[in-house]
Amino acid sequence: MRDFSQDHEWLSLNTATIRKQLGAEVPLDRIIDQCAALGIRAISPWRDQVHAVGIERIAKQLRAHGMGLSGYCRGGFFPAPDAAGLKAALEDNRRAIDEAKTLDAPCVVLVVGALPGALDGKAHYKDIARARGEVRDGIAASLEYAREVGMPLAIEPLHPMQAAERACINTLEQALDLCDALDPERSGMLGVALDLYHVWWDPKLEQQIARAGRERLLAYHVCDWLTPTRDLLNDRGMMGDGVVELRKIRGWVEAAGFGGFSEVEIFSALDWWQRPGEETLATCIERHRSVV
Amino acid sequence: MRDFSQDHEWLSLNTATIRKQLGAEVPLDRIIDQCAALGIRAISPWRDQVHAVGIERIAKQLRAHGMGLSGYCRGGFFPAPDAAGLKAALEDNRRAIDEAKTLDAPCVVLVVGALPGALDGKAHYKDIARARGEVRDGIAASLEYAREVGMPLAIEPLHPMQAAERACINTLEQALDLCDALDPERSGMLGVALDLYHVWWDPKLEQQIARAGRERLLAYHVCDWLTPTRDLLNDRGMMGDGVVELRKIRGWVEAAGFGGFSEVEIFSALDWWQRPGEETLATCIERHRSVV
Repeated sequence: MRDFSQDHEWLSLNTATIRKQLGAEVPLDRIIDQCAALGIRAISPWRDQVHAVGIERIAKQLRAHGMGLSGYCRGGFFPAPDAAGLKAALEDNRRAIDEAKTLDAPCVVLVVGALPGALDGKAHYKDIARARGEVRDGIAASLEYAREVGMPLAIEPLHPMQAAERACINTLEQALDLCDALDPERSGMLGVALDLYHVWWDPKLEQQIARAGRERLLAYHVCDWLTPTRDLLNDRGMMGDGVVELRKIRGWVEAAGFGGFSEVEIFSALDWWQRPGEETLATCIERHRSVV
Repeated sequence: MRDFSQDHEWLSLNTATIRKQLGAEVPLDRIIDQCAALGIRAISPWRDQVHAVGIERIAKQLRAHGMGLSGYCRGGFFPAPDAAGLKAALEDNRRAIDEAKTLDAPCVVLVVGALPGALDGKAHYKDIARARGEVRDGIAASLEYAREVGMPLAIEPLHPMQAAERACINTLEQALDLCDALDPERSGMLGVALDLYHVWWDPKLEQQIARAGRERLLAYHVCDWLTPTRDLLNDRGMMGDGVVELRKIRGWVEAAGFGGFSEVEIFSALDWWQRPGEETLATCIERHRSVV
């Protein structure tokens, strides 16, 4: 197992973590400069943040800093109430793949989607098996294009509390079953983004991480689970402030062959997004060394 | 599949559903009278509600109404930071079993517990595998006594969002694995309480319900999953107001041999607990007929 205690060489910052600082939205170019100033050598940006500044400008800025990506957030949201919606989702995923190529990302992270309309409180249908079928078909179609251009897709199992609105793939086992169905040859083009916030509770986690192996473990995200958790989406904790066994699980992941970045992704409307970005980043670095 | 559309013969009321009416706590004897007046023939009461009125008085009142129980809430909370705590939990479960006998319950529902102290925001340890081991040992010990007196224990898998604080058994598969380990003969003395709020999202739900079969399906709880869900504990929806496929899942449960009560359990601090109990009960009955 790698020793993280002396530096933060393997820390990546998911830019959602400091997208708000002191309560206000901060543009991605400023976030990149903040990270570069602290020697953070990888980020995982969100598409809307990239679009707001301009992708060519971001690509150039990353090159100038010698900064890489640990993933690109995000593709997915495949289910739709009708054929036009399904088609639009595939086209959008194709654009996400193209953008990831432009930014030289190692993978596109897929938040696969769930019951269409549920995110707005009005599900068009309740049949979660149908949504799962649409996800499978959507990934299969996107994978064809991903293979053509050489951009791996990383399915992110989301916590079951987000099964209605954001992702109907909710366990690592379920994600790996889908990987095995669509990419039985373990080509490296389809795998998972393992975010501990979503999977830490799973009694089959150790077993399924071993099953995933190096070819399927495309990204690794950390934060912590707070008790109490006050919001289903935006109350994630800083590593060390919650109950997730971070080091134990990293041991499992590295034993399975993963040697990439440990990407910090903290959505925290009530706490970290209200603080200065410098404080959040300094704490991420300190906790990366001491508890991740 | 049974036809629920003409009556509410198979509706049971978990008394948490109307423990608060118009924002105020209502004693269990009043709740029982309210249910009896509407022809509800079974309830599932909570221990603290029973204790507040007195168990003999409640037992007598139930007999007078010819009212039965669909379960007794609840045993469990086995993990503890030390030996004294583990012992105290076993003794408390023994008392719960005795009370269930007094009330002639068909089973004691087990909310098994999780990281001790997490419910108060200060977990004594983070090792969820240890908590799961303590749960296993606690159920094994309680099962000995339960067999002696003839009171089945129903493990309730809780939603993964409650894995830190309330129950570290979080899927039906995990609960059934434990049942098979501790009661391989399928004696009927150990099974599950299947609450759809906790399990509706599970991609293995249909498969595991079939696996459970009649001997393991000891209780069946319904409510609904709202989008958005505003609180991790007390924002459950009335049946039909959310995204759970109630009738489809009841079909699976009945195909597996279950023929008992459909127990309505709605924790709703912001909505139903603010309304008159009569309105909540009338709506439960109407939805039981139309969507359960």
